[in-house]
Amino acid sequence: MITLCGASALPAGTLAGVWPDQEPRVDGDRLNRRLATFGAIGRGPEGSMRVAFSDADREARAYVRQLMGTAGLDVRTDAAGNLLGRRPGVDGTRPPLWMGSHVDSVPQGGDYDGPLGVLAAIEAVQTLADRGLETRHPVEVVVFANEEGGKTGSRAMAGEVRPEELALTTASGFTIGEGTARIGGDPDRLDEVRRRSGDVAGYLELHIEQGAVLYADGIDIGVVEGIVGIKRWNVTVRGATNHAGTTPMDRRRDALVAAARFVDAVHSTARSLPGRQVATVGRIEARPGAPNVIPGEVVLSLEVRDLSMDGLDRVYDAVRARADAIAGDTGTSFGFRNFYISHAAPTDPAFRDVIEAAAESLGLSRLRMPSGAGHDAQSVARFAPIGMVFVPSRDGISHSPQEWTPPEDVTNGADVLLRSLLALDRR
Amino acid sequence: MITLCGASALPAGTLAGVWPDQEPRVDGDRLNRRLATFGAIGRGPEGSMRVAFSDADREARAYVRQLMGTAGLDVRTDAAGNLLGRRPGVDGTRPPLWMGSHVDSVPQGGDYDGPLGVLAAIEAVQTLADRGLETRHPVEVVVFANEEGGKTGSRAMAGEVRPEELALTTASGFTIGEGTARIGGDPDRLDEVRRRSGDVAGYLELHIEQGAVLYADGIDIGVVEGIVGIKRWNVTVRGATNHAGTTPMDRRRDALVAAARFVDAVHSTARSLPGRQVATVGRIEARPGAPNVIPGEVVLSLEVRDLSMDGLDRVYDAVRARADAIAGDTGTSFGFRNFYISHAAPTDPAFRDVIEAAAESLGLSRLRMPSGAGHDAQSVARFAPIGMVFVPSRDGISHSPQEWTPPEDVTNGADVLLRSLLALDRR
Repeated sequence: MITLCGASALPAGTLAGVWPDQEPRVDGDRLNRRLATFGAIGRGPEGSMRVAFSDADREARAYVRQLMGTAGLDVRTDAAGNLLGRRPGVDGTRPPLWMGSHVDSVPQGGDYDGPLGVLAAIEAVQTLADRGLETRHPVEVVVFANEEGGKTGSRAMAGEVRPEELALTTASGFTIGEGTARIGGDPDRLDEVRRRSGDVAGYLELHIEQGAVLYADGIDIGVVEGIVGIKRWNVTVRGATNHAGTTPMDRRRDALVAAARFVDAVHSTARSLPGRQVATVGRIEARPGAPNVIPGEVVLSLEVRDLSMDGLDRVYDAVRARADAIAGDTGTSFGFRNFYISHAAPTDPAFRDVIEAAAESLGLSRLRMPSGAGHDAQSVARFAPIGMVFVPSRDGISHSPQEWTPPEDVTNGADVLLRSLLALDRR
Repeated sequence: MITLCGASALPAGTLAGVWPDQEPRVDGDRLNRRLATFGAIGRGPEGSMRVAFSDADREARAYVRQLMGTAGLDVRTDAAGNLLGRRPGVDGTRPPLWMGSHVDSVPQGGDYDGPLGVLAAIEAVQTLADRGLETRHPVEVVVFANEEGGKTGSRAMAGEVRPEELALTTASGFTIGEGTARIGGDPDRLDEVRRRSGDVAGYLELHIEQGAVLYADGIDIGVVEGIVGIKRWNVTVRGATNHAGTTPMDRRRDALVAAARFVDAVHSTARSLPGRQVATVGRIEARPGAPNVIPGEVVLSLEVRDLSMDGLDRVYDAVRARADAIAGDTGTSFGFRNFYISHAAPTDPAFRDVIEAAAESLGLSRLRMPSGAGHDAQSVARFAPIGMVFVPSRDGISHSPQEWTPPEDVTNGADVLLRSLLALDRR
């Protein structure tokens, strides 16, 4: 058995030295074959139906357990229904390095969002096993429970699952509590899965991108800077309801005209400020809502996302200032009510550098980018440093049967994952 | 008996001569008392419920018949349920001059929209009767059936009621056919009420304004230039539905941003073009309509009103051009589907001059203005010249229990109506 840990003595930054030609590469054909096999589970005419806690979810987890066993992992299910496969490390005092993702899907979903990260993590440890390579840290592959239905498994580890959540009915028809038991967990003992700072050395997750950036621009690897924070507001614009025929244009206080200027201002503000924040109005209703009545009230949603909560608040402040100006111009008023907050989870800067160096060593092009969508890594970030690797997804599609990542990108992602793991192990 | 018809020999334009001090004035106290009495019919805690064909509508019509009888009118109900009270003229060969309006209300309506025109017309002929004054033309006071529910009575006279309309259920619970029979009409014989050009010498209608113009600006009399034409479209804006977190601002084809710019463009176009056209977006829906999804499709209503159909089409063409530019800027497309047309009905220019001169002779301030709302006069315009007189309504309110016109404005309106009638009779 070859022990790679000694490689940490090599001079930092000399990548050719850190990853010599004999460094392991994953078996891309095997990984892509396994993805195809996995994809058949729960697949119907309208996409994959591996919603958490369903029979297909259980079947998917059974397949993953089998692959974990083949890779020599010691497999267990924790009280939250998370599946953990452990490979011991050489140094018994070190906390484990984690890799993973989830296998459950949205209704009518695809085969890459989640499963790619799980199967690539297993492929990475299978490669270590095939080559007889050891690591200093234990390595654990984690399959988090019910990601799509509320990140229950990873949030339980962060101590964020409120007891009342267990009564919520999921797309499977089971409540989260029932479903957790159904996949081998114990909803009464969620406290046992709680992790604290220091319990885990680090977490790496490979995932498909969920916006058309890498695929559109032909970039191999996304080095994720963090999972964006999200705030959502209901915005109420109040003007005066009036007869659309008899009220002259210059005597109107049209709430929809004010709201329309606001929607445009939200878009232009988010676009013109420096940074990669996004801001969206996705829902709008004009009241009373008849073609011949000037709307007296409009209710709309505002969502802002940014890698930093300060940056997010700066966008909001700028948008509020625009609203004040619009209100003054149109004789209307704006009210904002926050109804959702999800805190930003930056990835660890050192993990970003490791991922970028791994991609560079493989000759892959890469881009530092935010993750605009939520991931289990976000919960793990509460107790451990995280890193995320994105690979292209055709047209940026996710949550759809049309999800597809070219086989070479699947292999590239797994190779970056493996090399990043080894680099972190050497630190 | 004094015959006024000889007054037409007086030099035109010398208003002091046309309306000497001894010209009749209505009894304003009587008219306002009758309005108050009328207002008690069908009144509940939430406003007046004289919806067409209801018991309250029948009670209102009975009260009006009684007043018509007192004024010496010969009363009949036609097949469409219109109530006509006739006073003979001196010249048996002349067609009648008409005055009138309606007595039915919207649900939770008020006491002025409609009843004012009917009671003022009766007051005008009562004044003639009190003074023993004769006219050359027969004078008929017309109470049109079911104005608020589709202008059935006046549209039947214009031959515009389609047979299938009779099956529509109204706010009274009765169909239009049942309701017409219920107020003394015969829905199988609507053809008999049809009027042709030449059958009626002219029609005058006094009505409250339905926008805050006269009341806000302290103007006594509105000289209506016409009832605006209306066109309505459903507008569909198509972009691309995308994830609101993962799609960068510069890669969006956000249908709601495009729609918002369109709403603003509609408002600014209607406001900046010369004329008094109005354009309104009253209804909007973004699809799929979730806070975290970029809308891929927006459906909204567009309504344009103008005194001339050519003017209306010019606004529409300008708005279409703006939509084309917005589509180009935002990577979206716009589709327009017209679903409603109501043709403009200009008032007769000579009638406007007569009304204005009548107001001037009474020392009243006046404003030429469009009627942005529909009226029975619009249907009558298909077969006879029309004129309309507006008086202030508090805050421009109509279709509400808050409708209120100061008593002196009620009297002014009836005086202008009477003097205009006499001037038209002299032509």
